[in-house]
Amino acid sequence: MKRLKLGGAAGAGRRIVEVGGLAFGRDFIIIAGPCAVESEEQTLRTARLVKEAGADMLRGGAFKPRLSPYDFQGLGAAGLKILKAAKKATGLPIVTEVMDARHIDEVSACADILQVGSRNMQNYTLLKELGNAGRPVLLKRGMNATLEEWLHAAEYILSAGNPRVILCERGIRTFETYTRNTLDLSIVPAVREISSLPVIVDPSHGTGKASLVRPMSLAAAAAGADGLLVEVHPRPAKAASDRGQQITPRAFADLVPAVRNLVAHLKAARPGARP
Amino acid sequence: MKRLKLGGAAGAGRRIVEVGGLAFGRDFIIIAGPCAVESEEQTLRTARLVKEAGADMLRGGAFKPRLSPYDFQGLGAAGLKILKAAKKATGLPIVTEVMDARHIDEVSACADILQVGSRNMQNYTLLKELGNAGRPVLLKRGMNATLEEWLHAAEYILSAGNPRVILCERGIRTFETYTRNTLDLSIVPAVREISSLPVIVDPSHGTGKASLVRPMSLAAAAAGADGLLVEVHPRPAKAASDRGQQITPRAFADLVPAVRNLVAHLKAARPGARP
Amino acid sequence: MKRLKLGGAAGAGRRIVEVGGLAFGRDFIIIAGPCAVESEEQTLRTARLVKEAGADMLRGGAFKPRLSPYDFQGLGAAGLKILKAAKKATGLPIVTEVMDARHIDEVSACADILQVGSRNMQNYTLLKELGNAGRPVLLKRGMNATLEEWLHAAEYILSAGNPRVILCERGIRTFETYTRNTLDLSIVPAVREISSLPVIVDPSHGTGKASLVRPMSLAAAAAGADGLLVEVHPRPAKAASDRGQQITPRAFADLVPAVRNLVAHLKAARPGARP
Amino acid sequence: MKRLKLGGAAGAGRRIVEVGGLAFGRDFIIIAGPCAVESEEQTLRTARLVKEAGADMLRGGAFKPRLSPYDFQGLGAAGLKILKAAKKATGLPIVTEVMDARHIDEVSACADILQVGSRNMQNYTLLKELGNAGRPVLLKRGMNATLEEWLHAAEYILSAGNPRVILCERGIRTFETYTRNTLDLSIVPAVREISSLPVIVDPSHGTGKASLVRPMSLAAAAAGADGLLVEVHPRPAKAASDRGQQITPRAFADLVPAVRNLVAHLKAARPGARP
Repeated sequence: MKRLKLGGAAGAGRRIVEVGGLAFGRDFIIIAGPCAVESEEQTLRTARLVKEAGADMLRGGAFKPRLSPYDFQGLGAAGLKILKAAKKATGLPIVTEVMDARHIDEVSACADILQVGSRNMQNYTLLKELGNAGRPVLLKRGMNATLEEWLHAAEYILSAGNPRVILCERGIRTFETYTRNTLDLSIVPAVREISSLPVIVDPSHGTGKASLVRPMSLAAAAAGADGLLVEVHPRPAKAASDRGQQITPRAFADLVPAVRNLVAHLKAARPGARP
Repeated sequence: MKRLKLGGAAGAGRRIVEVGGLAFGRDFIIIAGPCAVESEEQTLRTARLVKEAGADMLRGGAFKPRLSPYDFQGLGAAGLKILKAAKKATGLPIVTEVMDARHIDEVSACADILQVGSRNMQNYTLLKELGNAGRPVLLKRGMNATLEEWLHAAEYILSAGNPRVILCERGIRTFETYTRNTLDLSIVPAVREISSLPVIVDPSHGTGKASLVRPMSLAAAAAGADGLLVEVHPRPAKAASDRGQQITPRAFADLVPAVRNLVAHLKAARPGARP
Repeated sequence: MKRLKLGGAAGAGRRIVEVGGLAFGRDFIIIAGPCAVESEEQTLRTARLVKEAGADMLRGGAFKPRLSPYDFQGLGAAGLKILKAAKKATGLPIVTEVMDARHIDEVSACADILQVGSRNMQNYTLLKELGNAGRPVLLKRGMNATLEEWLHAAEYILSAGNPRVILCERGIRTFETYTRNTLDLSIVPAVREISSLPVIVDPSHGTGKASLVRPMSLAAAAAGADGLLVEVHPRPAKAASDRGQQITPRAFADLVPAVRNLVAHLKAARPGARP
Repeated sequence: MKRLKLGGAAGAGRRIVEVGGLAFGRDFIIIAGPCAVESEEQTLRTARLVKEAGADMLRGGAFKPRLSPYDFQGLGAAGLKILKAAKKATGLPIVTEVMDARHIDEVSACADILQVGSRNMQNYTLLKELGNAGRPVLLKRGMNATLEEWLHAAEYILSAGNPRVILCERGIRTFETYTRNTLDLSIVPAVREISSLPVIVDPSHGTGKASLVRPMSLAAAAAGADGLLVEVHPRPAKAASDRGQQITPRAFADLVPAVRNLVAHLKAARPGARP
């Protein structure tokens, strides 16, 4: 593998990325919320429910990369406003996607973490400009990105001046069709071996099936992930996108303590170390 | 998906496969041992060490499917004899591969469970004859098998008269090269959704890297697996095959209690249910 | 790549495999016929039509490896008898699959070439015994086999004593779903670079779509293939298997001269060399 | 597949995209040149040689998407100037990549065709803005893009107002490691079935091996491609990028007539139709 200058495994330990009082790389951080911001009512309702259930941060897409130009493309600027309102109402830090280098300032005004989606993992124009953003970046793994490509994509952001990068595994594309993608949990300890960056897991896109989100969330925690990104929608069957994979607030409320207890168990079993 | 007649999800619950006092589908079963039976000394030593460390069964290949005809092909009949001796010495039930329908009786004389390797998952000649074997069958997933193909391969054994089939996920082939295969843990809850068969996980072939065996074993347990198949060799660097992925007896002794404690934690957290 | 002892690129040129007056590696050989032998009427009718259209050999499966044990499994011994009758009626040499090492003699009594299917490419038991068969072997590439694995599978047959091996590319498994498989034509010149074995192409399984058989047959010839294996059925929509990919005798009659003319054009353009 | 409104197969026939007196969808167009513009000397020399050999257009990257930020990133604006000089010297129309929506005008001042690279195939920001560009767009297939995703990416450009889109197959990512990518030639007739857009093939990235460029160029023509995109470098071993896959001007001079003769042969064999 080509040498990593900045994102490589530091002898001195793991990189800590602090956001809103929490620290990726130290705390186990659960980010939850709808695939897309569809309305103020839907977003605020979900935000309150996931907060109550124990989420640490709120996710929701205002700008949506979609297969077809005729699909719902997100609410854009109006969606950002809604996310701002949700933050005000709940205090949850906001994670939302930025698709265009020219939107970084606008999105940063509302977001605490800027997400780069899978399809843009090698959009080097965007990555380089995020080096100047005043926000941490959540870099999703491309659907067909090798570990080497992913870490070098992170290196684009790091080398452009932004040291706050969080990786997010979200499933890779394989021949299997039962699941939407194949969630590659072995990438979590693999990242640990050769990089200092924190890495979280998105079991929603990773499987594409609401029924698999719970077991894969537990498995991600056991594999040593630094957190989760989970899609939650008050009425998944009515969602504007990703209907099959969003879980209900009730299922999420059931999931959070199970994951937190598992993390606590693992920490108690091996103090000072990750699995 | 084409309908499963026998291996489908039974309303009445999960299929239990009993072997030597243990029950796949109820107990969490850890199978360990070398990739290949290389000598009586190596096998007996490993057998004693993995038993001491808490393994439930011993694995070891006498017949080895190898890339090249010029590679070590296993000790064959002599290897079966050594496995018999290891069973006598330790009491551990034996799991070993059968590659040829004409060897089923010979292998059954020594083995408690007959393993079908990835490359033979769609060797229908072999599968049909295993329907008449008086032994449970451990059916590894093919490197490029979909869930549908895997469950229908099991159906060949079931429909030929043998109800005792245990599935084993061992990694699929993808574009990623950091790991030898991509361990697909989401297949574990997926099998649960549509089948009643027990399913275990092989993190050794699944990752091809000794350093990833521990986190992926924990992750497999958290995903709801019924057990593990782990390659252990007294001196991995000197092994006749799979050098990079076999762990030492010491690493295995460290792994077993961690996994057992995790399983106990998960059972306590949700009595009567799998994750 | 691990060294090939017998199937490697010979300094002395390419290996010629003679069958019924034709020579793989020198002539461009077109093998055609139904996916499965379904009845004497269907097989003889197809045999006569493909012969008339210019086919060199007849293909047809008597033993069929199928996804589910409840699917049509082929006519078995009765199918072999029908193939014998078709050979008698048309003079076409027969290519048919052998799935079980114990059937080699029985199948050899009717077949001029023994086919090993994709699913059995690493069924080493079968490969080793084919080393003793008195027939050439057509070795299909496994759905997920690398070039290295494929050539080493051939090496199992070669090193067991049978020098007459013909390779057949039939599509690999990828993420693309528009086609059944992805036909990898670059493997044809790749085989040429490092091996002396002849290699033909199966555009029927390779694409899974009757509409793509013609352009991919032409492309295979242009890539330097030594021949084609094409599925032809008198009424594809009524076939017992592979309905979408079998072409009609009429389409085949249209295809053969186009391919033969293309091969002649390429030979004239570069006498003494392959593209 | 989701319905295509603008790029779908028109009853009225295929879409013709005219550039510099040539027409994609009617003429067979060969684009050649170095992977990257490295210097004025290298670019002009290559331009003259490929023109002499029969190329229709010149390719060359000024902005280069590279794995690592520490790799050579292209000459940028200086590279565009060199391309302009090469156009002036040879009259060849220019094809070059645009990576950033903000560079469209700058690149358009020099380029006759704007290329979108594989990594940006789903960079929707860029695609939408190319809808307003006054230049045809060459849209490369993403390394893991399905036919559906590719055609919908084109739809983003078409629906934003630019009807001049040319598709380019450049190999997909699979498990095979002998080649850099797996060139999917079946996508060529597949595009034809459901779309009216012209489609060309890049055998250089498609195989990653100079030795495979010739046979795969011929195969692409036989599969019905509308043209080729070939990397040519005066001294491939000294190239700043893609060393293994660039062919010499001499090999290119040998290739062009072979391909043109093949296309002529195919046209003569079936006047008025594609293979």
